Amino acid sequence: MSPHERLDAQIRFVLEIDKLKGVLRQSWLLDGERRENSAEHSWHVAMMALVLAEHANAPVDATRAAMMLMLHDVVEIDAGDTFAYDTAAHADKEAREHAAADRLFGLLPADTGAALRALWDEFEAAETIDARFANALDRLMPMLHNLHTQGRAWQANGVTADKVLARNHVIADGSERLWAYARNVIDEAVNKGYLAPAVTYTSG
Amino acid sequence: MSPHERLDAQIRFVLEIDKLKGVLRQSWLLDGERRENSAEHSWHVAMMALVLAEHANAPVDATRAAMMLMLHDVVEIDAGDTFAYDTAAHADKEAREHAAADRLFGLLPADTGAALRALWDEFEAAETIDARFANALDRLMPMLHNLHTQGRAWQANGVTADKVLARNHVIADGSERLWAYARNVIDEAVNKGYLAPAVTYTSG
Repeated sequence: MSPHERLDAQIRFVLEIDKLKGVLRQSWLLDGERRENSAEHSWHVAMMALVLAEHANAPVDATRAAMMLMLHDVVEIDAGDTFAYDTAAHADKEAREHAAADRLFGLLPADTGAALRALWDEFEAAETIDARFANALDRLMPMLHNLHTQGRAWQANGVTADKVLARNHVIADGSERLWAYARNVIDEAVNKGYLAPAVTYTSG
Repeated sequence: MSPHERLDAQIRFVLEIDKLKGVLRQSWLLDGERRENSAEHSWHVAMMALVLAEHANAPVDATRAAMMLMLHDVVEIDAGDTFAYDTAAHADKEAREHAAADRLFGLLPADTGAALRALWDEFEAAETIDARFANALDRLMPMLHNLHTQGRAWQANGVTADKVLARNHVIADGSERLWAYARNVIDEAVNKGYLAPAVTYTSG
């Protein structure tokens, strides 16, 4: 491939990922105007990596974590956003997202595509220090959005505190301090009535 | 400041920058659905840095360029988006944006804020290799958006090819190859009737 052919392929990828701006998440913007899309979410969590890196359990490369977060949702262009608490959709999430990664990173010259794919795979595997921290931020962010929009996405989807705790305890793998912070967010949300404590079954 | 006080300050910054998702640019999404906001634009140009770094005039640190692009528009939360061809608004753009940078980066602990502010200042100065390349991408992106939306933002604002050439020749400072590509974009847009060649004054 000549430099110009490489550039053409890279620009095709750049144009293709514009579609991520049209993928809606369950989260609402803090001003309550509309639901968030996955492109602006990716920017927001990547920014979070730059300012919160010092709270990771072990020293992280903040820019690598940010890069992973910029990339982590591009597969939603094909696979759609899978809501964290939608267990049915999670059954085939991995297969859908791997097929999407094959197609999207496959638009790029092989070396560029392989480099980005490796970062995406690393985020998905959540094994390295950088990836664990990046995953922690991706879990924490929607909790902040919920707390500051009166639990809007939680309530619309019948999510309860026990589910939030069970789903997000992996935050501790990246940052014990952020997990402590997140538990306070959950407590505050329950106390304010934004988040139901748990589904309760009473007999009587 | 204790680690918890630092975290509280950092989270305040993270919540504050959610507002960038509500700052609209002149560019339209490629699917024509709506105008682009500055948060998703920041993500998109940062992604561009990751895939196009090889085309810079001199070796660049792609992740540093991407970080600058993630940060470069946060000041619009206070200062608004200034359209590239709005010469009146450009008169006080620098003063408005510096005041915004003082306030926004000032929300962070001093060391975190200073590190991000230094990257923002470096992008604005456009003197280092990384900053010149980042600025080149920020100029190229709206041209791609215009080409693929029939020149929608150019036409809505009466922008002509001579203005696009004059405004964007600085792309060459970051990448001669991308500037050659950009000139082809301009030619194609003119040929397709998306961009008027120039305002012409005829006598007789």
